[in-house]
Order: sequence, then C-alpha cells, then structure tokens
Amino acid sequence: MLSKSQIKLITSLKQKKYRQQHGFFVVEGIKTINELLQSNLVLYALYTIESFNINAKEEVLISEADLKRISFLTTPNKALAIFKIPESKSIDAEDFIVALDAVRDPGNLGTIIRLCDWFGVKNLVCSKETVDCFNPKVIQATMGSITRVNISYVDLVGFLTESKLPIYGAFMDGENIYTKKDIQAGILVMGNEANGVSKEVEALIKEKVSIPRFGELKATESLNVATATAILLSEFKRR
Amino acid sequence: MLSKSQIKLITSLKQKKYRQQHGFFVVEGIKTINELLQSNLVLYALYTIESFNINAKEEVLISEADLKRISFLTTPNKALAIFKIPESKSIDAEDFIVALDAVRDPGNLGTIIRLCDWFGVKNLVCSKETVDCFNPKVIQATMGSITRVNISYVDLVGFLTESKLPIYGAFMDGENIYTKKDIQAGILVMGNEANGVSKEVEALIKEKVSIPRFGELKATESLNVATATAILLSEFKRR
Repeated sequence: MLSKSQIKLITSLKQKKYRQQHGFFVVEGIKTINELLQSNLVLYALYTIESFNINAKEEVLISEADLKRISFLTTPNKALAIFKIPESKSIDAEDFIVALDAVRDPGNLGTIIRLCDWFGVKNLVCSKETVDCFNPKVIQATMGSITRVNISYVDLVGFLTESKLPIYGAFMDGENIYTKKDIQAGILVMGNEANGVSKEVEALIKEKVSIPRFGELKATESLNVATATAILLSEFKRR
Repeated sequence: MLSKSQIKLITSLKQKKYRQQHGFFVVEGIKTINELLQSNLVLYALYTIESFNINAKEEVLISEADLKRISFLTTPNKALAIFKIPESKSIDAEDFIVALDAVRDPGNLGTIIRLCDWFGVKNLVCSKETVDCFNPKVIQATMGSITRVNISYVDLVGFLTESKLPIYGAFMDGENIYTKKDIQAGILVMGNEANGVSKEVEALIKEKVSIPRFGELKATESLNVATATAILLSEFKRR
C-alpha cells in the first residue's frame, strides 16, 4: 500500500520546482531503472509490481492499480523509481562540448543526451532556459544515457565568454559543414526549436556552420534540432 | 456551431480505420495548414477561430470552445483542417529510396519524412506494419514536408525482391559508414525501434552499414531510428 504522503511526493516530482526542493527525480520502466541502478546514482525508492531482486530496503512491491495512480505514463511500465539528483561535476574545459541555447522540447533534449553518449561527448552545457534534464519525459527519451553525460545548467553567455575553445554554432546560413576545413575540438552551440540561437549568444560564435539542403528550394523548413545535432556531431567526430 | 455529425467525423479520423473509410486526414495549426493549402492536396473542411482569408466555402469560423472539443492536441492551435488523402504516386525506381521496416513511433516517422524532404529523397517506402503516415502525430511532426515526399505502403519483402537497386540496411554490426567505399544511389532500409530489421528483410540486404560508436563501450544502447536515419542520409548525400 502506498501512503498519501508517498503519492503526494511522487506526483509533485512532475514539476521542476519540487524536484529542486526535494532533490529527487522519477524514472519509469524496468530497462531504464536497471541502467540507473548500475550507475553511481543513489536510489531513494523503488515501487514495482515485480521484485528487482536487488535486496534493497528501498524496494516496495505495489499493485498494478497503485502503479497506475503514481505513474506519469499513459501505459505504466511495471516500475517507478525515485533517484537523488546528483551534484553536477565541473565541466572539462578541454574536451568537446555541446551547448544548448533554450532547447525547450523534452524529447529533443533526451535525444541530444543520447547522441552525446553515443558520440563520446562527456559535457553537455545548457542555458538556464533549456528544459530541465530531470523532467520525466527527458529521462524517458535518454534511455539510460543520462548517467554517462555530465549535464550543467549555466549562464550560457558568461560560459562562452570565458571559454578558450573554438565556438561553433548551427545556423541556416552558416558554412557548409561537409566542405569546411579545420574543424577542431570545441563547443557546438545548438539553438531553440523556433527561434534558433539567440542574438546575445550569436555574438560570441566565431564559426557558423550549416547542413546543406538537397531538397526543393521552395521548402524553407529547417531540420529538427535533435536531427541537426545528430548530423553535426557525426561530422565533427568522423574526421 | 459545429454539428454532431461534424464532430463525430473529425473525432473518428484519429483512427486509421476511419481515415481509410472516409479518405480524409486531420491537420492542426496555422503554419502546417498553410503549407498544405499551398500544395496539391484537396481541402475538405477548415475549422478555425481566425479567418485564413482564402475565400473558400470550406472555411468555417468556430469558437475556441468548439476548437477545444474537436482538437487532438492538449493545447489547440487556432485551426483544424480536414484534407483528402491523396492517391499515392508510383515509386520512381531509379531514384534513391528510404524503406522502413515496421517503424512504429509516429514522431519517428514524422521526423524521417522531414529528413527525406531535406535530403531530396522523393520516395519513402513503408512496410504495412509501419505506422500510418496520416496519423495526426505523424502529420504534426512532418511540419508540412508530407506534401513533398511520395509515401507508399507496400509488401516490403516483395518490393525489395523485385528492385534492381543496391539495397543498404542499418545494422549494429554493419560496415563503418564513414569509411565505406562505393556508395551509390539505392535503397536504405531502416528497422523497427525495438527489434531492428526483420529476418525476412535482412535476407535481402546486400550491404549492411553501421554508425560507429565513440562513447564508452559498456553502454550498449543503439541510436534512435530517426537520428540514425539523419546521419546515414547525410553520409549518402554528402559524397
């Protein structure tokens, strides 16, 4: 049985305000929970309809009806866990860094975290306007890779101003990434879904890059920010 | 005012069965509706809270409350239109083709359609198990590019068997796409989110390709099918 206070705590964690207040975030689904259990993250509570056999006092067996009451998903996936939000590590200023300027969609951020993991990018730097990485929809989209990428929320203008790395940014009118020479380890800035990179951040970008369009000219739509990040990271890393 | 039968028709179009029965699909949001109005698609009805000034008898001004009743979105976006499902054109067998083997997620299909448009891929061939491209969530994710890509649902095994083009497929253990030589116009097969390419289709693939992983080895998770499609299409087209 779940107590009223447990249900209240879990439900509150949908909101960033309460995640920050309590220092907890929610993860759902056996596969992702198992990935997080194998990481350095600290488990606070695990509510599940089938035992994980982890011999932990944090595990509480609950009914399917109870899971339905606490789950954030339309179709609950057998278990819901609460983990402590880890302290973010300092950013390795020598390594390749992806920086996000107000990416708002949780699915996009989750996909970008997964891409950083795939391409060995250890540091993801987000402007304060970027969606919270402990948002349940972000966690769901990362498929466990959130444990392998160091994510920091910073004043992006201040961070870029202080950095000594070359700063690249994705723009519609940038230099063709396929033919660009001299690509080095640096910072790759990706902008907001609707408005792209903000004016203040744009002023700090020395190298504007672009993915050429092969389709008909009359179509002006840009690529989705997550797919553009996929293509650009692939280009940076393949060389 | 909306009539009961109008509401019933619109609501039914959430389901593939009724889309096929009536031959209609739903599009929401001013931007996407405007893109579709400029295409060859035939408008059947347009319910909107602000006039599009298109001087069409299909346009019906409705209240916000009415829009909320018919919208498939949590936050309705000013207008909802019904268009006729176009007849699919014959597949250009000489051109580069993307083929999907049971891609199930509407967001992934929508993103892949948008990618085909960007990279000038005119033909997208889907197995019958692939999610319907007139699913409202697919239409939403395509951002209008559905009007510029010819999408066909076929018996994929039969289609590949008859094709004379080279057949490439994305696999975890394929040849490194960055170093692969002799990439030609052909068919690129992408598999299901959970299970990859099916055994029957795999048997028809001559060239298995793979995107190298740069991150830690202990992480075994694959890339999302839409981001993998982005990177592979970029590789095919950049040469």
